[in-house]
Amino acid sequence: MPTITILGAGAMGAAQCRPLVDAGCDVRLWGSRFDDATLDLLETGKAHPRTGVPVPEEVKLFRPGQIGECMEGTDVVVMALLSSAVPRTTRRILKYLGSAESVWLTSKGFSQVEDGRVRLMSETLRRVASETGSEMPPIVTIAGPVIANECATGRPTAPVFACHDISLAQHYARTCSTPVYVIEPSGDEVGVEVCAPLKNLYAIALGIAEGLGERDEVSLANLRAALFVQALREMSAFGQDLGGDEHTAFGLAGAGDLEVTGRNGRNYQYGLRIGRGATPVQARDEMLKRQQSVEGIVASRLALLFAEQLDDGLLDKLPLMKAVGDILIGRVDDYLSVLSEAVLHPVA
Amino acid sequence: MPTITILGAGAMGAAQCRPLVDAGCDVRLWGSRFDDATLDLLETGKAHPRTGVPVPEEVKLFRPGQIGECMEGTDVVVMALLSSAVPRTTRRILKYLGSAESVWLTSKGFSQVEDGRVRLMSETLRRVASETGSEMPPIVTIAGPVIANECATGRPTAPVFACHDISLAQHYARTCSTPVYVIEPSGDEVGVEVCAPLKNLYAIALGIAEGLGERDEVSLANLRAALFVQALREMSAFGQDLGGDEHTAFGLAGAGDLEVTGRNGRNYQYGLRIGRGATPVQARDEMLKRQQSVEGIVASRLALLFAEQLDDGLLDKLPLMKAVGDILIGRVDDYLSVLSEAVLHPVA
Repeated sequence: MPTITILGAGAMGAAQCRPLVDAGCDVRLWGSRFDDATLDLLETGKAHPRTGVPVPEEVKLFRPGQIGECMEGTDVVVMALLSSAVPRTTRRILKYLGSAESVWLTSKGFSQVEDGRVRLMSETLRRVASETGSEMPPIVTIAGPVIANECATGRPTAPVFACHDISLAQHYARTCSTPVYVIEPSGDEVGVEVCAPLKNLYAIALGIAEGLGERDEVSLANLRAALFVQALREMSAFGQDLGGDEHTAFGLAGAGDLEVTGRNGRNYQYGLRIGRGATPVQARDEMLKRQQSVEGIVASRLALLFAEQLDDGLLDKLPLMKAVGDILIGRVDDYLSVLSEAVLHPVA
Repeated sequence: MPTITILGAGAMGAAQCRPLVDAGCDVRLWGSRFDDATLDLLETGKAHPRTGVPVPEEVKLFRPGQIGECMEGTDVVVMALLSSAVPRTTRRILKYLGSAESVWLTSKGFSQVEDGRVRLMSETLRRVASETGSEMPPIVTIAGPVIANECATGRPTAPVFACHDISLAQHYARTCSTPVYVIEPSGDEVGVEVCAPLKNLYAIALGIAEGLGERDEVSLANLRAALFVQALREMSAFGQDLGGDEHTAFGLAGAGDLEVTGRNGRNYQYGLRIGRGATPVQARDEMLKRQQSVEGIVASRLALLFAEQLDDGLLDKLPLMKAVGDILIGRVDDYLSVLSEAVLHPVA
């Protein structure tokens, strides 16, 4: 079984320890300088502040300064960092990646680096590597409906592992699944990767509809369901535009993840506040006051930029994405009509 | 614009009046003998007991004995009856159908008639017609996320109109849509039709997972999302087996309708009770006490019978349907493991 080093001791990094230990992997967990307080807790067997459970005692913990030590002889590196920290940390560990068999990516999203262009995280990783003349090992994107505390406590979870080389994804599905953490392999790396940030912005739309529905005696469940379907269609169109498989968005990485994200989660809560009457700025501030960042806000901006950048008519297939973007930047006031128009397409 | 006669003054029949009147149709609403009290209310401009709003004053109301009168010169007949009443009522109106351009079907489900075989409702209609040497006009199946009271009050709603002859579905989408009731046409009559009863039984599964999750400190949202995706896949497999389109289940008729049915609704509530600890029999009795029938119970039994009857390996693609069936007949006790096994498929 592989030696797996998880970079980032946040909720998702810590949560992955449980199934990987159970699958028989040798697991190391490295904390960045933001994780020091968390590591203090984990080292003494206490619960992770966000998952609510300790990491398994078999996990070896490493502090920020010990990155060389924890990378030594590792077979798999799991990037479970804040998306913004991924390029920087990748530069630090490049020299240790020569013998790694793969890099797993739970950090997801679009990234916009120096040249202003928007890219998928995996592409950014490969660019960082090529800048220094190195080659990135195969990347495996992990997505799907994986609420961290459920994963950490052994509740049934079905993640997707996606890799251009599907045989590698299948290999991990065979070797790293457990009875309650069953990996679904996919060869559609780009399709899976694009679903992860997109579902956050569509969850905002579902929250807005829910909130708008609460303001009236009659709910907006029909609209919400139509938004849900439109979101899947737009995720599928986006993935296909990048060369992905049209079906991916209708599977665990798209429909599955949106089902859970759109019923709860920060992006949904943020949308709910807007639907109930807060301005987007007020809603964001209320979330920040609770120390809850809303990934979908940035995802909305970058996804639209990305689609424009591709400049091939993709944007025309994304009316709901545009509607969310317009709402979040305060360009429109009548949210109900903007959302309705985005999903109700009369036949010409 | 067509003259449309809606048979059945229940929630769905009454709800369809609003958009059809707004689209400019001449609308007649016929009540069966079970609808007498409802018609008393509607005739005096009072709210429908289930949608909470009156029908538009332009609607002409007809009593059980007036079926000949209300069928006279009608262009479209909408079957909005209890599924069990559809064959009988069809026999009564056959003689008036000669000049009708189509029959719309909001009554959905599998039906099992004299010969014991399970059929789709549309097939049953056509058989009833052919038994008397008549021919059924084209059938249009109406499905998708249409909560009746939302439709009746003009909240945004996106139904699917499916017909073997897609040009007919497109015709109605053009002529009978309104700004808030926007019809999506489909040529996949069978695929759309099969989603309607199936989503009810899968909504039971989602309710069970939700209820099981409430019994522990940690929820089962990851499992619920995986169940949702598996439900879509099984609806797609079922539709394809009957010659339908693989995509239909991922659109409004499948994903859209399951999104709304699986978050609320009777089938979900019934599943929730089971998940929380009631036996299936207790849960059904509790629902009946509130005069809430649970369509998914019959749908589960008939769907399994239907799949067996097709006898072509379809059943092997429906592990979640089998799991729900096993739970409902009391064949299994450990619901969590049965549901998990149905959706977590280790790679061999």
